Amino acid sequence: MKSMRRADRQMVREEATELLKRGEYGVLSTLDSLNQPYGVPLSYAYADNSIYIHCANEGTKLDNIKSNSNVCFTVVGNTNILPDKFTTEYESVIVFGKGIIVSGNDKAKGLREIIKKYSPEFIKEGEEYIERAMDKTTVVKIEIEDFSGKHRS
Amino acid sequence: MKSMRRADRQMVREEATELLKRGEYGVLSTLDSLNQPYGVPLSYAYADNSIYIHCANEGTKLDNIKSNSNVCFTVVGNTNILPDKFTTEYESVIVFGKGIIVSGNDKAKGLREIIKKYSPEFIKEGEEYIERAMDKTTVVKIEIEDFSGKHRS
Repeated sequence: MKSMRRADRQMVREEATELLKRGEYGVLSTLDSLNQPYGVPLSYAYADNSIYIHCANEGTKLDNIKSNSNVCFTVVGNTNILPDKFTTEYESVIVFGKGIIVSGNDKAKGLREIIKKYSPEFIKEGEEYIERAMDKTTVVKIEIEDFSGKHRS
Repeated sequence: MKSMRRADRQMVREEATELLKRGEYGVLSTLDSLNQPYGVPLSYAYADNSIYIHCANEGTKLDNIKSNSNVCFTVVGNTNILPDKFTTEYESVIVFGKGIIVSGNDKAKGLREIIKKYSPEFIKEGEEYIERAMDKTTVVKIEIEDFSGKHRS
């Protein structure tokens, strides 16, 4: 990753990791075979230096990942518009990595991590949900190659 | 744009336009010369079928736009996690277009639209801000080629 132009806004690694853990959603940027970028918002879970997302078994983001596995995943945390300062306080993390369609244990792990994050009170029902959803769901694991966080406050 | 897989979730055009107008920020997806996607969150204004963003005079997104003007801009509105349903209600718009670095009147218009959106109580101070910021700011106009909105509720 290139060094950040505004080093004064760079987050320490722990802060960026913490934002990746708690972010409500992220935007997955992929690339189609005609070099058109495509950014789609998705729920996700962060675990073991990877990001797990899930989706239907077909769609643009899967087509794109199959033709080019380079992806970017962007998470924004708290924001605060300061109208009189003509600026916004924000915190964000940008992740670069490879998108890999996973199966078997890796797929189940991805779905479990997503349920742990969004439905922590429904783990048992979540296991039943995973069983029902397994065949009609695709899980993509983004193996993180680099990430950096930025904040302005 | 490809037709949406889940047509039942497609927003009517007016709804998508309305979300583009009120969205707090968007993620700009661009592509570097090595075909690595890059998604960065940005304040923006929507006007005249274009999206205006502003930034410093150098940086990754400008390098990318100069090498490939195809961009995607993704705006997310309200979201609502439904833990017991293992899903999230959301509304989002995905825009495809060309990123063009603008100057002169177009540049001033872009900055004015951004101030009108985020600092509506500070239009006069905003004009002074524009005068001071003009030389150290770059404005990118995204000429919209296509967009579509999606909601799940």
